[in-house]
Amino acid sequence: MAGPLEGVRVIDLTSMLSGPVATMMLGDQGADVIKVEPPTGDLVRHMGRGGGDMLNPAFLSCNRSKRSLCLDLKTEKHKEILRKLIKTADVFVQNFRPGAIERMGFGYEDVREIRPDIVYLSISGFGETGPYANKRVYDPVIQALCGLADVQKDRDTGRPRMVRTVIPDKTTALTAAQTITAALFARERTGKGQHVKLSMLDTMIAYLWPEGMAGLVMVGKEDKGSAGAQLSQDLIYKTADGYITCGAVSDSEWQGLCNVLEKPGWLTDERFATAGARVRNAPERLSLTAEILGTRPSSYWLKRLDEEDVPSAPVLKRHEMLDHEQILTNGILQEFEHDGLGQVRQARPAARFAETPAEIRRPAPQLGQHNEEILAELG
Amino acid sequence: MAGPLEGVRVIDLTSMLSGPVATMMLGDQGADVIKVEPPTGDLVRHMGRGGGDMLNPAFLSCNRSKRSLCLDLKTEKHKEILRKLIKTADVFVQNFRPGAIERMGFGYEDVREIRPDIVYLSISGFGETGPYANKRVYDPVIQALCGLADVQKDRDTGRPRMVRTVIPDKTTALTAAQTITAALFARERTGKGQHVKLSMLDTMIAYLWPEGMAGLVMVGKEDKGSAGAQLSQDLIYKTADGYITCGAVSDSEWQGLCNVLEKPGWLTDERFATAGARVRNAPERLSLTAEILGTRPSSYWLKRLDEEDVPSAPVLKRHEMLDHEQILTNGILQEFEHDGLGQVRQARPAARFAETPAEIRRPAPQLGQHNEEILAELG
Repeated sequence: MAGPLEGVRVIDLTSMLSGPVATMMLGDQGADVIKVEPPTGDLVRHMGRGGGDMLNPAFLSCNRSKRSLCLDLKTEKHKEILRKLIKTADVFVQNFRPGAIERMGFGYEDVREIRPDIVYLSISGFGETGPYANKRVYDPVIQALCGLADVQKDRDTGRPRMVRTVIPDKTTALTAAQTITAALFARERTGKGQHVKLSMLDTMIAYLWPEGMAGLVMVGKEDKGSAGAQLSQDLIYKTADGYITCGAVSDSEWQGLCNVLEKPGWLTDERFATAGARVRNAPERLSLTAEILGTRPSSYWLKRLDEEDVPSAPVLKRHEMLDHEQILTNGILQEFEHDGLGQVRQARPAARFAETPAEIRRPAPQLGQHNEEILAELG
Repeated sequence: MAGPLEGVRVIDLTSMLSGPVATMMLGDQGADVIKVEPPTGDLVRHMGRGGGDMLNPAFLSCNRSKRSLCLDLKTEKHKEILRKLIKTADVFVQNFRPGAIERMGFGYEDVREIRPDIVYLSISGFGETGPYANKRVYDPVIQALCGLADVQKDRDTGRPRMVRTVIPDKTTALTAAQTITAALFARERTGKGQHVKLSMLDTMIAYLWPEGMAGLVMVGKEDKGSAGAQLSQDLIYKTADGYITCGAVSDSEWQGLCNVLEKPGWLTDERFATAGARVRNAPERLSLTAEILGTRPSSYWLKRLDEEDVPSAPVLKRHEMLDHEQILTNGILQEFEHDGLGQVRQARPAARFAETPAEIRRPAPQLGQHNEEILAELG
């Protein structure tokens, strides 16, 4: 069945993560995404534990639902092929450092001359001007500048800490996908394309703002300690055989938790009797709770917490997700045969469209796998 | 100037974060978002350090660019108002627990009868069926199930750790905004609306997959240790007066770093001479680097690292962002007068559309602030 973006052609000159993950989402939604790669291929082809043929888990998971066209854009002949392709395109995406794509001859003005209603997205690390504009992007650098490392700082030592997955890249990918889709919607109504610029730094500040930055909202009353992220407590408890999370905010949840912990006395204990008191005495409450939860295995606690309607879950190791009943029910993980690599597992697109399904359309391509096919289409 | 979603009307029955942040993005992009609230208001109105009138920093940052309509959907009279409003709507969004909206009389089938081409998005915590379907959503529960707490685990103790900002809520918001926009695009071409379902759990697994889950991609060769998140090193260094991040991957960056650290001998040291050797001897390399960086202030090192083209940045405390030159250049933070609250600071939408700007359209509304206006429009 056709996806929501059926009939849209995307020319994708991006590499690494922020661009490729964005265009993969568009591909899953039915867009015809043509990944234009240099003869050396996207850098990600050369990273991580490989499966041969410049395919590896990271590349497979950022580049499915695309076709690969290998072009050497240093040659005029190949530039001409790209120009022909642009004539047929709706979207053009690039994430080179500011200025590079113009030097290659495919800046917005160049592309618009070939295809006047193009939706053209430029992704940068820090913005197109300013002291960082020409720096190489690097996930920890964005985490450091946007306040995420400060949000995650160690509560005891105050030492900032990185989040150990590339949040800035992936959040930029989602923002980029929404941006392109909104520009396509506008073009559908007005007939006009446009240039849209997006930086990873801006993306992360906008992403963190609704909750992580509450202390900066009221001008003149800024919280210089910037303590106020919501999850100031790390609600992870060690049981006799693993880790679980649980938490009780409302009175009824607290009552449930006291039942589970077999501490009826806490219900009338003035340290914990009201929601306000429980917040004030959080360190004591949490350490007493932790002590009890340490005495029995996770399965016992999770069953009891569930019976008493206290929000809770096991803290899953990544491979444990593969067997978790809710995750199996959702069918979010899908396996398919990848020519020459065996069975490959992917997370399907999260949104379930009833009429225009988003789905994995094809496995990630080998470098230049679709050269002949695409050139034949161009004639 | 009109935004890309100009002319789209969104009826928003969501509360908390995942729904409201999604519809705020649509509102910034020009959609007419009507936030339908019960007489008690969105729960977020009652959370956090308040500014009176049920407005507080978190609410302000999740609900700008919307109008508020207060309805008591337990009364038939107010249900009738909502039905009239649905007749004029393009999008309907709700994030109640599965089954609740149907009991209120505004499930997809009900709404479609009133407005056949509606784009209807249901956001759930865990999915619509399965053992967790009826559990209350709670950010740490999603972090525990989706593997994020495992990605963030302490490398020394193996103890899992939460990310201290609500990544699942905000990532679901971005995914929801893209989903709605894609369904609107499809409706523009086909004339048909549809029901789309999105769970926070699926969203997070799909979000983490391209990088955090690389060890699960090859079926039968799963990494049960699940060590393989990219940022296994926490590249934060304590200087004489603060914290910085820096990293050298390529040979030329390594050369630059050795110059900065005044360690020319490391260039020929067999522990560090090649990229491969530097990865193998990372602990030693990082601790030697940390020792030297601890001897001088951040400003000295950042200047030198910049001169030698080594990717680097200060680790900013949140309030330090307000004065950082790149962030000022980008103009990502904007201040405006909020009636009765004084100056309010927000992060503008990250994407910069040249023709159809996304921008902060109006401040977050008081509860029911637009009742009269909207009822007058309905006649």
